[in-house]
Amino acid sequence: MSIPSLSDIKRAHTRIYPYVVNTPVITSRTINELVDGEVFFKCENLQKVGAVEMRGVANYVFSTRSDLRKNGFATHSSGNHAQAVAKAAALAGVKAYIVMPQDAPPVKIAAVRGYGAELTLCEPNEAARKEACDKIVKETGAIQIHGYDDPIIIAGNATAGKELIEEEPDLDFVLCPVGGGGMAAGTTLITHYVSPSTKVILAEPENVNDAYLSFQSGERQTLPVDHKPTVADGLQISIGELNFEIIKKYADSIETVSEEEIISAMRFVWERMKMVIEPSAAVPVALLLKNKEQFTGKKTGVILVGGNVQVDNLPF
Amino acid sequence: MSIPSLSDIKRAHTRIYPYVVNTPVITSRTINELVDGEVFFKCENLQKVGAVEMRGVANYVFSTRSDLRKNGFATHSSGNHAQAVAKAAALAGVKAYIVMPQDAPPVKIAAVRGYGAELTLCEPNEAARKEACDKIVKETGAIQIHGYDDPIIIAGNATAGKELIEEEPDLDFVLCPVGGGGMAAGTTLITHYVSPSTKVILAEPENVNDAYLSFQSGERQTLPVDHKPTVADGLQISIGELNFEIIKKYADSIETVSEEEIISAMRFVWERMKMVIEPSAAVPVALLLKNKEQFTGKKTGVILVGGNVQVDNLPF
Repeated sequence: MSIPSLSDIKRAHTRIYPYVVNTPVITSRTINELVDGEVFFKCENLQKVGAVEMRGVANYVFSTRSDLRKNGFATHSSGNHAQAVAKAAALAGVKAYIVMPQDAPPVKIAAVRGYGAELTLCEPNEAARKEACDKIVKETGAIQIHGYDDPIIIAGNATAGKELIEEEPDLDFVLCPVGGGGMAAGTTLITHYVSPSTKVILAEPENVNDAYLSFQSGERQTLPVDHKPTVADGLQISIGELNFEIIKKYADSIETVSEEEIISAMRFVWERMKMVIEPSAAVPVALLLKNKEQFTGKKTGVILVGGNVQVDNLPF
Repeated sequence: MSIPSLSDIKRAHTRIYPYVVNTPVITSRTINELVDGEVFFKCENLQKVGAVEMRGVANYVFSTRSDLRKNGFATHSSGNHAQAVAKAAALAGVKAYIVMPQDAPPVKIAAVRGYGAELTLCEPNEAARKEACDKIVKETGAIQIHGYDDPIIIAGNATAGKELIEEEPDLDFVLCPVGGGGMAAGTTLITHYVSPSTKVILAEPENVNDAYLSFQSGERQTLPVDHKPTVADGLQISIGELNFEIIKKYADSIETVSEEEIISAMRFVWERMKMVIEPSAAVPVALLLKNKEQFTGKKTGVILVGGNVQVDNLPF
């Protein structure tokens, strides 16, 4: 696997344009006053399926030749990636086979069904998910789509940052969460290509700080099996190989935030900005609010990665 | 009190323009597909203080001569009106005296304090609220601002509908909630003046249907003391006199929705449109979803009146 080029990202953008939303970039007077600077939020919570993952997956589905994709696509995921594969396959008019753990949020299971995907529920562990998915691939000839450790996914996800920078070209900082790194690597890469003077700061929950430790040591670390839980369920995963290679080369720093900081930032965005964002999206907002002084007098872009939340089961 | 003229509303708009947000009008593909028509949401949940009330109150405060407003403003309210008076007085550089019932949502009490108002908590009943407020007015010389039954408030609130119609001039319907009628009368009036072919439909919770009954009988009715409760706390109030006069003359219909329909519409907007709206704002959305066929093939405007919710105390 090689690092996507700027042309790869530009081609991805042209390719997915008919299938995704060019989401708005919004500002909040309250936030600007708080940090005494300018902050621009790229609202991927308003993306199709409610998350930035739609971009990477649409790039994958629509860059697969139609004779090769005729048997559909498969994946295992408990979250936004599952919904994105279901939706993108439906847009391409082919089948989607989604393996989800039994304990996935009911709202996400319902959404995947709603997009017409064929759903398989399995035991909630990595081995069971992989096994069920491999079996489906063997039986159906569907193509499996990995959630983040893939140059095509990274190039697709990078288009969110591309749109942000095109709309606000003089950013001092771009903030983005990091988990598997599909979004983080894409944002890091496009910023490096088109706005090299902008610093990329990645934000990670303290409780799942494998990307932080990897960045510090220079060696990719995986998340220990007995890691602490985080409310930012979408980031509860080890950073991918290609993802880490890109981040190590081009990101400026990785910083961590506590669970309390994430929940309080999420609540702030809901109550004051009236926007529904998911906990993963609140992680860079938490960093912004924690390290205010760093962003005073500066122009900062923040990618709000998604808005899928079980509203009857909130952390506050 | 006389019905505001079109000039009154235009002057109100010019007057409050520096102090309010020209809120966005948004669309939702999901909603458009559901009703098979075009729906335009005027996002007053993104207004200052998170509610359309800011418009009417700003009109009141800034149309009061500065020598007359020097002793500040007073009001009693448990909700958005209290926040709006606190904020508008602060913008005018004068004092705000707010009487709130002890059982008002903590988040609203905190917001009023945050705007620098002088707060008086009282027993949670109408008589205690009035008494406390009258006492303050007598002692301080502050001017009391009524929440809705006032031509200046109505003219200010009408500017939300004015902006909506200017942005989307060919609406077949405008939907808006009705409680005291400050917003409903304003929207009805401006639509009558500038887009007379647009039908105005007002939506009210079944449990507090005094405006509905008034409209049916042609005689203003007040809410019985033992009325059922509604989750749409902002609408739990009898329709005002001037408000009813305007609505009776110019609105096309008033229709009611159940508590279940309100809660489910609110949840729909949160989960699918990723927007935080308060229950009162969900009332016309509930009507839209209930009577889909009526809006099929049509262009409908909906005023989302506010977004102030205690996020740790939700009806779902």
